[in-house]
Amino acid sequence: MGSDRLLYLPLGGAGEIGMNCYVYGYGPKGKERFIIVDLGVAFPDMDSTPGVNLILPDISWIEKRADRIDGIFITHAHEDHIGAVGHLWSRLKAPVYARAFTAHLARMKFDEHGLDAAYINTVSAFPETVTTGPFTVSFAPVAHSIPESSALVIDTPQGRIVHTGDFKLDETPGLGEAHDPAMWAEIARPGVRALVCDSTNVFSKVPGQSEESVGPEITKLVADAKGMVVATTFASNIARVKTLADAGQKAGRSIVLLGRAMRKMISAAVEVGLLTDFPPTISTDDARDVPRGNLMLLSTGSQGERRAATAQLSRGKYLGMSLKKGDLFLFSSKTIPGNEISVSRIVNSFSEMGVDVVDDSMGHYHVSGHANGPDLAEMHRLVAPQFLIPMHGEHRHLREHVKLGKAGGLSGIIAPNGVMVDLSGNEPKVAEYVETGRTYLDGSSQIGALDGVVRDRIRMALNGHVVVTLIVENNAPLGDAWCEIKGLPETGSSRAPLVEVLENDLGQFLMRADKKTLRNDDKLEEALRRVVRKVTKDEVGKKPEVSVIISRLEG
Amino acid sequence: MGSDRLLYLPLGGAGEIGMNCYVYGYGPKGKERFIIVDLGVAFPDMDSTPGVNLILPDISWIEKRADRIDGIFITHAHEDHIGAVGHLWSRLKAPVYARAFTAHLARMKFDEHGLDAAYINTVSAFPETVTTGPFTVSFAPVAHSIPESSALVIDTPQGRIVHTGDFKLDETPGLGEAHDPAMWAEIARPGVRALVCDSTNVFSKVPGQSEESVGPEITKLVADAKGMVVATTFASNIARVKTLADAGQKAGRSIVLLGRAMRKMISAAVEVGLLTDFPPTISTDDARDVPRGNLMLLSTGSQGERRAATAQLSRGKYLGMSLKKGDLFLFSSKTIPGNEISVSRIVNSFSEMGVDVVDDSMGHYHVSGHANGPDLAEMHRLVAPQFLIPMHGEHRHLREHVKLGKAGGLSGIIAPNGVMVDLSGNEPKVAEYVETGRTYLDGSSQIGALDGVVRDRIRMALNGHVVVTLIVENNAPLGDAWCEIKGLPETGSSRAPLVEVLENDLGQFLMRADKKTLRNDDKLEEALRRVVRKVTKDEVGKKPEVSVIISRLEG
Repeated sequence: MGSDRLLYLPLGGAGEIGMNCYVYGYGPKGKERFIIVDLGVAFPDMDSTPGVNLILPDISWIEKRADRIDGIFITHAHEDHIGAVGHLWSRLKAPVYARAFTAHLARMKFDEHGLDAAYINTVSAFPETVTTGPFTVSFAPVAHSIPESSALVIDTPQGRIVHTGDFKLDETPGLGEAHDPAMWAEIARPGVRALVCDSTNVFSKVPGQSEESVGPEITKLVADAKGMVVATTFASNIARVKTLADAGQKAGRSIVLLGRAMRKMISAAVEVGLLTDFPPTISTDDARDVPRGNLMLLSTGSQGERRAATAQLSRGKYLGMSLKKGDLFLFSSKTIPGNEISVSRIVNSFSEMGVDVVDDSMGHYHVSGHANGPDLAEMHRLVAPQFLIPMHGEHRHLREHVKLGKAGGLSGIIAPNGVMVDLSGNEPKVAEYVETGRTYLDGSSQIGALDGVVRDRIRMALNGHVVVTLIVENNAPLGDAWCEIKGLPETGSSRAPLVEVLENDLGQFLMRADKKTLRNDDKLEEALRRVVRKVTKDEVGKKPEVSVIISRLEG
Repeated sequence: MGSDRLLYLPLGGAGEIGMNCYVYGYGPKGKERFIIVDLGVAFPDMDSTPGVNLILPDISWIEKRADRIDGIFITHAHEDHIGAVGHLWSRLKAPVYARAFTAHLARMKFDEHGLDAAYINTVSAFPETVTTGPFTVSFAPVAHSIPESSALVIDTPQGRIVHTGDFKLDETPGLGEAHDPAMWAEIARPGVRALVCDSTNVFSKVPGQSEESVGPEITKLVADAKGMVVATTFASNIARVKTLADAGQKAGRSIVLLGRAMRKMISAAVEVGLLTDFPPTISTDDARDVPRGNLMLLSTGSQGERRAATAQLSRGKYLGMSLKKGDLFLFSSKTIPGNEISVSRIVNSFSEMGVDVVDDSMGHYHVSGHANGPDLAEMHRLVAPQFLIPMHGEHRHLREHVKLGKAGGLSGIIAPNGVMVDLSGNEPKVAEYVETGRTYLDGSSQIGALDGVVRDRIRMALNGHVVVTLIVENNAPLGDAWCEIKGLPETGSSRAPLVEVLENDLGQFLMRADKKTLRNDDKLEEALRRVVRKVTKDEVGKKPEVSVIISRLEG
């Protein structure tokens, strides 16, 4: 056992918010057994990943060691923790462990991917444990913004690790499990080697607010409303959805769920027995017979997602429902950085309809699901670990979190994705740097982030695309070179069509081109490309992407 | 005079933040004389305007009436108010009026565009006036975040209009002109028909803070710093740049200006006599001989602009300067919505270097240049207009601003871009809807927002581009159809190269194609396009953009 190592390796989620995927290892070097904690996704954006559907962690490192994986543990059912399980599981093929609600949603993902859901094991909460290989793991309930979120208590022959998952210290979380200091005292009692801890809200310097605090505010807002009320939040925030629905019911309103995710999440919570007293809902068909003032719609798309119910309502109708002057729209949510413009587009559309939009700028109608700075410090005290490893944060969050730990007398290490940390000694130390990265789910394909596909798309988007076709017969041009442009202005500085100017200048070039160039496809392509880029730059001020297609006929 | 109309028409800036361009008209219908207030730009983003350099207002409506323009008045030198003057002036050719600092920067823009700077007139502030056509205009100094910002007091035969431009109520703005209630009392005395008023911060419910409040905080931060200090802010915020430089000087640091805009703005302020006591600066060459702890760098790029000094520093070096562990980087700025990701990328890079980054999350190191809700209400009271027309805001801001006016007993109208308002009567009324929109500066061309160029770029970015070339001789394919893909995965579900699958299926199609299709270019193109889209969808789950190029040889 002297040579056994206890390892921590983030493959995603450390150095970014999203795409969580962590590996723990135990055993002699090169023969460690592994567990994976979370298999999450990140979401693409037009700036860096146009056309991409989802961003998955690059799991090549652990895939090569798939025969040594003893289990995959999912802390909770947010997409940045569970979203890749359907896409990546067949490359890992280890049993999946999760609590009932999470397991239920994981099974739905397995079904969608044609995978055998029997690999998914539903486990009970702390103090129950799962033992697999050298690991004994327990799901310790924490408050977050989705049911049954759990920290993992991971026992190994070299001590206990607490992996918090996403959490907040909420003793009145509405629906679901409250923060339980007594449980944490029990978990801490045998001593904890490392606390691997959520860093999302480390920059928030005041203690977080309880989920319960939003209830009265929402209830008052809905009670005072005259017209139809529509509210949006994350569908998976069952506690919030219930608070909203309860507020509607109290105000004598019929509840309508809008959007697939909203209905899916509510039924999942009902099916696993988490949600027993959700107000009755009516369909959009029935809603049309109810006076507007007696309706409360709960709708998906709080982040401005183009296809979600909220965005569709902002463009006119969704399943026959539409908003009008005097209605109220409530964002019971926070806009995630990067989504500001999509969300404000929706707010402006509602504003044009005369709808009153209420958002969280006053802090009344939403609370975060993550522990703020002082709450993190409290967690450090509760767990009293030997050392702290911040996770679930960009580099700046991890760094601030280490500082926060240090302020409380706790030593910590910044370990971004790919940094394998050896936890065996008295101090954590970097064991190895592992190549990590991102894989894109692109349409139905998985492509590497560095494959050049997305780079080409970005270049076409920035610079346009010129296609040149040329037929060459016996090493002489047959007719003219033809051009087609896409994503470029039709006319340039010479006021003639760009295509004509290009074809003229290519013609000039071809007349002067020597046999050596005409004979060699690479040379000819490169020469034509150079002409196109120069002419396009002169005409419209852009150096486009150029594809040259040479067809050779031999006479 | 009975038939004379007094008109207000926003061509940009009402229904958006940015791209300000307002028209005022006076005279008999169809023969009105006009003035233009501001010619600003908006900035493109990858989501909606990839590859575009600048967004300009569509001025076609006023261009058609260019012979009736009596002047172009620029309220201040922010790009969203002055940025289009070089690009659009030659289509308007009216004299430009601005105060010295603004005029100085306008002349630089004219020089860059080879325009005659003699058309730019430097004017003095209120109570001085410019009379042109039926308008008498005075530049009333207001506090904002750039020197010599002005409201316009526009007198017409049908009364006085106050057009605020961008402003805040700051009685201690550091450098520059303070808010002056006495001046406003004088302006209000004869009675004001309409207040056309900045709406940017209408959702901020507490009075705004003074520029002076940031001085002590910044001074303390810099005094306490040990390593090099780098601070960024908008280069045009001369007051802030001076505050930063003064803080550096007090701490015994040499000041270095990094970035073209920073040097340009400081020299402009010096040249027009606004800035007389800026601390001495040193060059980056000399800075290399100064100990880090004695340096204070002021750098451009507070919004994360890729090419600006700040972003370059975050990637390594800028003009030989680089940051390292123990240095301090200060964002004395607010991140404009949409720029969050670029800014946080920079913060994370600095974090990786071990640099301490301080931003405005605590509200100590930056104040806004716009009036908050209560300040707007104060302005309403000071001016006491007959009615209120909110501008410089998205629809939601305009709507909230009308509500705010109503709460103070003021009637108002929401008039987004293109809504021409007749101010002649007792109540403002909509006279006409004018077609407005956006023009893109794209490389060196100006293209219409609806020309399809940018739409094609977005489609290529989302879906990739397939080019098909086919040679047809005497209405029969000569050889195979060739494909080239760009921005698409190389292999798809059949695990063969996508190009091969495409070429095979196109070959199959061509073998079966009838003469009628082969004879008709449109039909053949459409048929080939359909095959490509179907095959690509099957293989990689995407429907790409397709260009088909048919070369016909007649034998």
